[in-house]
Amino acid sequence: MDSLTQIAINARKASIELQNLTAENRSFALNKIKTVLENKKRNIFKANEQDKQNADQLVKDGTLSASLFKRLDLESGDKFATMLQGISDIDRLPDPIEQITYSSKLDEGLELYRVTCPVGVLLVIFEARPEVVVNITALAIKSGNAVILKGGKESILTLTALSSAIQSALSYTAIPPNAIQLVETRGEIDALLDMDKYIDLVIPRGSNSLVKYIQGRTRIPVLGHADGLCTVYVDEDSDLNKAIRVVIDSKVNYPAACNAAETLLIHRSILSSHLLPLVTALQSNNVLLHLDKESMSQLRSPYDTSRIQLCVPENFDTEFLDLEMAVKVVNDVEEAIQHINSHGSKHTDAIVTENEHTAERFMRCVDAAGVYWNASTRFADGFRYGFGAEVGVSTNKTHARGPVGLEGLLIYKYKLCGNGHVVNEFGEGKKKYLHEKINVFRDNLIYKY
Amino acid sequence: MDSLTQIAINARKASIELQNLTAENRSFALNKIKTVLENKKRNIFKANEQDKQNADQLVKDGTLSASLFKRLDLESGDKFATMLQGISDIDRLPDPIEQITYSSKLDEGLELYRVTCPVGVLLVIFEARPEVVVNITALAIKSGNAVILKGGKESILTLTALSSAIQSALSYTAIPPNAIQLVETRGEIDALLDMDKYIDLVIPRGSNSLVKYIQGRTRIPVLGHADGLCTVYVDEDSDLNKAIRVVIDSKVNYPAACNAAETLLIHRSILSSHLLPLVTALQSNNVLLHLDKESMSQLRSPYDTSRIQLCVPENFDTEFLDLEMAVKVVNDVEEAIQHINSHGSKHTDAIVTENEHTAERFMRCVDAAGVYWNASTRFADGFRYGFGAEVGVSTNKTHARGPVGLEGLLIYKYKLCGNGHVVNEFGEGKKKYLHEKINVFRDNLIYKY
Repeated sequence: MDSLTQIAINARKASIELQNLTAENRSFALNKIKTVLENKKRNIFKANEQDKQNADQLVKDGTLSASLFKRLDLESGDKFATMLQGISDIDRLPDPIEQITYSSKLDEGLELYRVTCPVGVLLVIFEARPEVVVNITALAIKSGNAVILKGGKESILTLTALSSAIQSALSYTAIPPNAIQLVETRGEIDALLDMDKYIDLVIPRGSNSLVKYIQGRTRIPVLGHADGLCTVYVDEDSDLNKAIRVVIDSKVNYPAACNAAETLLIHRSILSSHLLPLVTALQSNNVLLHLDKESMSQLRSPYDTSRIQLCVPENFDTEFLDLEMAVKVVNDVEEAIQHINSHGSKHTDAIVTENEHTAERFMRCVDAAGVYWNASTRFADGFRYGFGAEVGVSTNKTHARGPVGLEGLLIYKYKLCGNGHVVNEFGEGKKKYLHEKINVFRDNLIYKY
Repeated sequence: MDSLTQIAINARKASIELQNLTAENRSFALNKIKTVLENKKRNIFKANEQDKQNADQLVKDGTLSASLFKRLDLESGDKFATMLQGISDIDRLPDPIEQITYSSKLDEGLELYRVTCPVGVLLVIFEARPEVVVNITALAIKSGNAVILKGGKESILTLTALSSAIQSALSYTAIPPNAIQLVETRGEIDALLDMDKYIDLVIPRGSNSLVKYIQGRTRIPVLGHADGLCTVYVDEDSDLNKAIRVVIDSKVNYPAACNAAETLLIHRSILSSHLLPLVTALQSNNVLLHLDKESMSQLRSPYDTSRIQLCVPENFDTEFLDLEMAVKVVNDVEEAIQHINSHGSKHTDAIVTENEHTAERFMRCVDAAGVYWNASTRFADGFRYGFGAEVGVSTNKTHARGPVGLEGLLIYKYKLCGNGHVVNEFGEGKKKYLHEKINVFRDNLIYKY
């Protein structure tokens, strides 16, 4: 058997062993990982130094971007401490497993429970930031999943140092060390994508093209965390001050994030009052604007022409991830909805309006994970939503959508407890199904000891 | 633009229009469909007659099985009435849309709601039974989804009659007729599987090979409804009477169903007491048995040898879907769990035991949608579970698992309602997120009118 199949089988075995462990086992393991990472900080920083030296050369050669280089760094500021704090934060969340989400008494002595359980084996593919390995590890252990991790090749030494520290920590706990395994090359991913027998869910965190590539290569369900093409629509009934606040924050607060806005739609009837103030505010924040013909023709001097261009159609399908924004005039909320449903990425879209009915229509009809009314698209984030931890932001329309916390790593199973019950005794002229709700207290479940 | 792309675009448009309709609109449409189907019963039966005549020839030629032929028939018994009753049953279920499943006050005036919504556009592929088109239509309308349907080619005339009746009914309602569209050939499916831009979820109902084929051909998420390889494990602490009841019902009640058992595992220590009674009971129900060496050698005359064979390894990976069962001796519950996790289809597996700890271990560690204790695998069914309606039984481990009711056709969106709120005002030394639970009464939601 080749070594990759062995990795997948080991993960599957670890995932089954994980089913037998308690919340206390999982919590102990999280704390142990934190301690060992702390103790091995010096080793990990040494590996990170080496990764950075190698990457520095790539930046000089022009084959690695400066922003990727920056994300590689684990030493600066409080990055390492924040990473460790993240483990404690996840440890403190309520136990997500064995939660009863449906129950029904089917017959005397025949009780049905739908109970949350781990998905099983996850394959998580992420890019440069090495601390993701620790974050995903903590989420996986908390949710009882085994995980196979593949990070960016630029941070391979740091990743190896982190994951060997994690495995060594796990060897002191009830969690099988194979619950967390690292693979190193892109080629290994292709082979793993064929192993739907052992792997239950693939989570790619990266570019749209990475997600599409993976979706096209595997029968395993994919939880896509693609980039976001978010839009703010400023309605005819909008308050100008709110419009400026929401547009500026959505675009400027952190332009490289997937929840930053890329497109501004503005209602035709408020061009004369709202356009110039919005453009001026964006320009004073150094945003390069791609205006459509109509908005361009509305602008009268004095305005700064240096950061303004006439848009081309591709601008409305581009995730700038930078201080750049496309601007388009629309006739009404219907055209705004249509534009977003055709060009957006189903991530997060906002309307600025004082009209409740217009807001309602926008929020119903825009097909996105987040539909916002008078609020910045930048709120689309697991921590801001109050989930305590985040796997990423899903643009899927099944399983988990929007910011994904522990819940996205869970599924359920149906537990049916009987006393020799058979289907054959139910039906016309025989027994009837009761379908009575069971009052469940988690600790008195018959299958819970 | 080709006609298939047009079908997909029409479905997408209909799906957006559906977001604006009320529960009353949907209920009216369901009732209208029921009436029109009733009125067009004669036409539909005529089409069904023709399908049956054509199929009869295929049966004679040996290219269609008798059981498929039987499933094609819509006229016999109360099939048609049951189909219409199904529409009313689904109509009576509570409205599943706009249910709030999470809410959080992030800040004064900034409220987050996670609200159920339709997945969007479904592509449902099913085999012979033509009444499925009506069942899926009712589920789709109730859940606010648009659907593209592809049925078996043997029932094409019946399907066309049913779907044209449905479309004509919808033309009298607020639901766009394009919400329900039928495609006719297998080739059309391949083209539609590429349209992840317009289609959100593929639901194949049929053989394992159909599901695998589709999973390998598309980037669209697939909700697999494959066959089931279900197992009953009779533990050392089992009650013999319960064991016989559960095994017989699981195997004999309806052997062609996906929730029928195919494998019997029996604990070594109870071979002398339990094996012969179980074998005798199965034989008296005409079940052909594939015994492993050890169980075979345990049998002493008198027993009927005519329906007993020595097993071959493939027997434990076969869904007989008939009065046939493979039997294997295991050493303990661990070996039973391992066997099921290696050979089963993650559908439904049962243990017969009086030992709570053994049951608990089995139910935790068997990785299946249904894990049963002293109950027949045949209970795995949406109606028996109390869901009122069933899309099918999912062997997926994401999105929806086990019997799938309306919930499996829903996802959620996050609605955030603010007052010009921006992320930039939160953080160190600035505002803190409140994350307070909102007491939600569905009718006083700010976005609900």
